[in-house]
Amino acid sequence: RVPRAAKETGEEADILQRCRGFMSPPVTDISVLQGNKDEMRTKMEMLIMETQADFCKALEKVDGGTFRVDRWKRKEGGGGISCVMQDGKVFEKAGVNVSVVFGNLTEEAAKQMRSRGKVLKGKDGKLPFVAMGVSSVIHPKNPHIPTVHFNYRYFEIEEEDGTKQWWFGGGTDLTPVYIDKEDAFHFHKTLKEACDKHHPQYYPDFKKWCDRYFYVRHRGETRGIGGIFFDDLDSPNQEEVFSFVKSCARTVVPCYLPIVYKHLSDSFSDEEKDWQQVRRGRYVEFNLVYDRGVKFGLATPGSRIESILMSLPLTARWEYMHEPAKGTREAEMLDALRNPKDWV
Amino acid sequence: RVPRAAKETGEEADILQRCRGFMSPPVTDISVLQGNKDEMRTKMEMLIMETQADFCKALEKVDGGTFRVDRWKRKEGGGGISCVMQDGKVFEKAGVNVSVVFGNLTEEAAKQMRSRGKVLKGKDGKLPFVAMGVSSVIHPKNPHIPTVHFNYRYFEIEEEDGTKQWWFGGGTDLTPVYIDKEDAFHFHKTLKEACDKHHPQYYPDFKKWCDRYFYVRHRGETRGIGGIFFDDLDSPNQEEVFSFVKSCARTVVPCYLPIVYKHLSDSFSDEEKDWQQVRRGRYVEFNLVYDRGVKFGLATPGSRIESILMSLPLTARWEYMHEPAKGTREAEMLDALRNPKDWV
Repeated sequence: RVPRAAKETGEEADILQRCRGFMSPPVTDISVLQGNKDEMRTKMEMLIMETQADFCKALEKVDGGTFRVDRWKRKEGGGGISCVMQDGKVFEKAGVNVSVVFGNLTEEAAKQMRSRGKVLKGKDGKLPFVAMGVSSVIHPKNPHIPTVHFNYRYFEIEEEDGTKQWWFGGGTDLTPVYIDKEDAFHFHKTLKEACDKHHPQYYPDFKKWCDRYFYVRHRGETRGIGGIFFDDLDSPNQEEVFSFVKSCARTVVPCYLPIVYKHLSDSFSDEEKDWQQVRRGRYVEFNLVYDRGVKFGLATPGSRIESILMSLPLTARWEYMHEPAKGTREAEMLDALRNPKDWV
Repeated sequence: RVPRAAKETGEEADILQRCRGFMSPPVTDISVLQGNKDEMRTKMEMLIMETQADFCKALEKVDGGTFRVDRWKRKEGGGGISCVMQDGKVFEKAGVNVSVVFGNLTEEAAKQMRSRGKVLKGKDGKLPFVAMGVSSVIHPKNPHIPTVHFNYRYFEIEEEDGTKQWWFGGGTDLTPVYIDKEDAFHFHKTLKEACDKHHPQYYPDFKKWCDRYFYVRHRGETRGIGGIFFDDLDSPNQEEVFSFVKSCARTVVPCYLPIVYKHLSDSFSDEEKDWQQVRRGRYVEFNLVYDRGVKFGLATPGSRIESILMSLPLTARWEYMHEPAKGTREAEMLDALRNPKDWV
């Protein structure tokens, strides 16, 4: 087994050096990160800060605007960095959020985790945890540029005897307003390549999981054309799962930015903008009614509402009995949402 | 005790005659209503149909537009009549919905009711029920005309031994974009007068209940400036409660229409329109995250989604970290939502 430090010297510069490229100092003190540089929580915090910076900078470059950076603390432990660009030239609303929170699991949260099959033995009923992740939703102005969402997260719980339970979750998915098969192919293929490097079943399994998760039951539609989604990933070992999550996180820019550039100058009509607004309404429905992260956030005391709800679009529309005419591009979009397809 | 038929002759014309004024034939066949004219379910269906018609006609008169009328059936029993006016001259979206549904309670619904303290003894596990109501949300275009919502409903369950449990619920509440104390006084006073005719505690109790129910917890704000809200009302007796509900339902037009007429020609700025759109976003948050009726509807198989979600505005807006400057009319509005007031 190759020692970690040696293995990473080539790929990773030192912590202080890497932090200089972030949107803000990391949530955890740099000296603490340096002191624990081989721990997974440090490696993951560095990865999510880096993913935030890389994505924000790529978006700033194409938009010409600048992200507002809000650093916030959580009374109960930890905090986050929210980057938001609103009403830019290209993006109506772009949010990229990092959070690193810790404390003791609430009874409610522990119950939820047990219901997901976790056996948790706390010390005097207390379960110290760390949860961290990067998440982002980008709503462009032009209806020919799709909305993208991604989230990569890490969870660690310390049990009574000091052993740690940990797992990773995440995913990247695309929500176009109109179907562009070339875009869909590029997006899924880029994800598939990142997955295939780690396990041949990852892409097919996580693609299906994504279609299942982003399902708006009351509409009988998926939110978008999917991508990948996974949770509770804890095998074969921590290093290998982290390496997979790193591949996914580093795939966000190559998945999305080529699509943005391709449609940057596409012209669009009022009708196309209206259809985008109706689709935005469905996006809001999914996020407020079904999304586990949003529901968990809204129900958690001390959570930062503005960071949770920054995923909502700047504008949305609800038309009574809206149904596109047969044979239109709007009907084609709806069909793909009602009958999820294989794009690669 | 005055015989019912005699008591009602003066006030109520015959069923066929009254149906002629409705937006559509009632959900239940007229001949069935005529055959059961002394039953509460008939009296309530007539009342909700009448309330729908009176309100729709008053709104059509002020707008100049016409309601689209959709009659729908529910496979499992019953149906409804949805009246919607969209993108009118005065109203951005106006929905007035009647539904009369029946069947056997699902296990989930029975459980919910038991959790609310109802003791229900079913026959072979089956609990036949009838649920009916009229509900409406009106979103005007002009930010100086408030949004209004009302809902009046009746529930009946037949137990094993043939006895019926029944109760009424309902309420009317106002969601302005800017505070107008005169409007708030008029609205609450009209409701108070309707309540006071029946019980001196109704207005104070149901006003508080309304503030409690329409609370957007994650924002720390009420949805609007309230009104009245009540549920599970089953005393002193069925006739008296129905009489109270009738007073409330007949108060909808006098509560709201004078406010609409007063502000019909108010001019407004782009900034005022933006603030309205931000408030609309909060309206969507309440309806999708907390509203019991919406949650119940979205989770119920066979429910008509378009009628449930017709309460959502045509357009809404989510601005990151929106906070009005001190001393502005927007800040005054927010203060009233954060600290519910007594308006009469």
